[in-house]
Amino acid sequence: MSTESAQIGLEEFQQLIDEALPLCRLFGIRTESIGYGEATMKMHFNPDLIRPGGTVAGPALMAIADATLYAVVLGMIGRVELAVTTSLNINFLRKPPQADIIAEGRILKLGQRLAVGEVMLFSEGVDEPVAHVTGTYSIPPRR
Amino acid sequence: MSTESAQIGLEEFQQLIDEALPLCRLFGIRTESIGYGEATMKMHFNPDLIRPGGTVAGPALMAIADATLYAVVLGMIGRVELAVTTSLNINFLRKPPQADIIAEGRILKLGQRLAVGEVMLFSEGVDEPVAHVTGTYSIPPRR
Amino acid sequence: MSTESAQIGLEEFQQLIDEALPLCRLFGIRTESIGYGEATMKMHFNPDLIRPGGTVAGPALMAIADATLYAVVLGMIGRVELAVTTSLNINFLRKPPQADIIAEGRILKLGQRLAVGEVMLFSEGVDEPVAHVTGTYSIPPRR
Amino acid sequence: MSTESAQIGLEEFQQLIDEALPLCRLFGIRTESIGYGEATMKMHFNPDLIRPGGTVAGPALMAIADATLYAVVLGMIGRVELAVTTSLNINFLRKPPQADIIAEGRILKLGQRLAVGEVMLFSEGVDEPVAHVTGTYSIPPRR
Repeated sequence: MSTESAQIGLEEFQQLIDEALPLCRLFGIRTESIGYGEATMKMHFNPDLIRPGGTVAGPALMAIADATLYAVVLGMIGRVELAVTTSLNINFLRKPPQADIIAEGRILKLGQRLAVGEVMLFSEGVDEPVAHVTGTYSIPPRR
Repeated sequence: MSTESAQIGLEEFQQLIDEALPLCRLFGIRTESIGYGEATMKMHFNPDLIRPGGTVAGPALMAIADATLYAVVLGMIGRVELAVTTSLNINFLRKPPQADIIAEGRILKLGQRLAVGEVMLFSEGVDEPVAHVTGTYSIPPRR
Repeated sequence: MSTESAQIGLEEFQQLIDEALPLCRLFGIRTESIGYGEATMKMHFNPDLIRPGGTVAGPALMAIADATLYAVVLGMIGRVELAVTTSLNINFLRKPPQADIIAEGRILKLGQRLAVGEVMLFSEGVDEPVAHVTGTYSIPPRR
Repeated sequence: MSTESAQIGLEEFQQLIDEALPLCRLFGIRTESIGYGEATMKMHFNPDLIRPGGTVAGPALMAIADATLYAVVLGMIGRVELAVTTSLNINFLRKPPQADIIAEGRILKLGQRLAVGEVMLFSEGVDEPVAHVTGTYSIPPRR
């Protein structure tokens, strides 16, 4: 937990992704909280998210994880829209039931040019994680 | 290129994902070809796929890569719907323009319990890849 | 922190890697603690571990992380020597100084066939991590 | 295969790692060829490289893969010693026998700040790969 405050507000971030990242709307992804280097998002379950076996499709989990990392990074550097993912690694841990997904992200390292973070994904109401993600964002040169 | 033939037909695979994987429909993902341990898929560009910067959102690339690996694996083991992704790693190489995405997947190793494959992602009409993916599928025990 | 006890003792694990994993001896890797699904190891700095820039070489960090995941997994399933790494992903966070490395590992998921864990790597005496690793072990069928 | 020529010679690269990367000497890693964005290296088998099961230890495979990516990158940008690995992902495909390892690396993308490459690892004399690696190098600012 950082003592510094978030460099972008929850409403501003939500508005940014509402306008510029339509996948978040399609997937029902909402921002729950943003701090300095940490963020929580929620994906509302809907039948479009399933895959064979009746579980939540992997790419939907990747989408909320990627959005959460974006929130984590912008929470530290402010509204730098062109921060972009350069790599993402996901390990699926347990088959999520048909329920909302909670993503808890935090920064591992913020550098001048790269930010690395991790996200733990949970099914709402279940203690054990359904997936774990690490990802890297490239930060455009700042004046 | 394998001399063995695909263990699932293109139409049967397309029907399977049409019915059981709604994300593929949402994203306009279609099967172009399936062989034994190789597959090609295409994602039709639409404005829902963009992200800030006017490029294709990372999770859309992950979605077509994951579907392509599913085709690669089912091309070798037949219609085993409960083969599931256990891990996926993506490196973003170039910002894709607003154009269709082509995914070319191939198997790296098919074992009794795990299959590992890689996918190269291209923007239609461009030679250099936009992303590279490796992924692992867990194969349920077969009688 | 688990309330179950480790399924392999620290001395037995150290003896196993001393005998069967010569790299750990070459790299000066020692077991500090093993619990049920968690382990800590230390790599004693020596000049063979450096790389250009005077920092610790990446593969040495990967070696201690891999050994730590082995300890984490054997701490849960006992002396199953043929548990083998199937994938490993490392993100380098900060250039480590020429100092001992501490690896703190924990389980993310133990399944019948796969175990997934993560390891945070630190330079001795420094709070911020130098690298983060996730890895997957394949567990041979048990009677 | 590129038509441009390597920006560092094989002997200069080998001398660089001989002097500044002692792990390569410990592991018996030698440069076989360097081109512009491609390189081949070989690791001579010795008993220090084994792990339980009598196979080659994962970290030894990671070491040759990392060195090969270094060669791939320096083959494109010349002797920039402080190019450093920022991430590496390995999938183990088959248990290598006690034999030399051949690593074939190639560039996937060279950018201003990051280079991404892949490496396929083989046991000498065996057609099917034993492991697949992708990795990212950070390139220091150049004047």
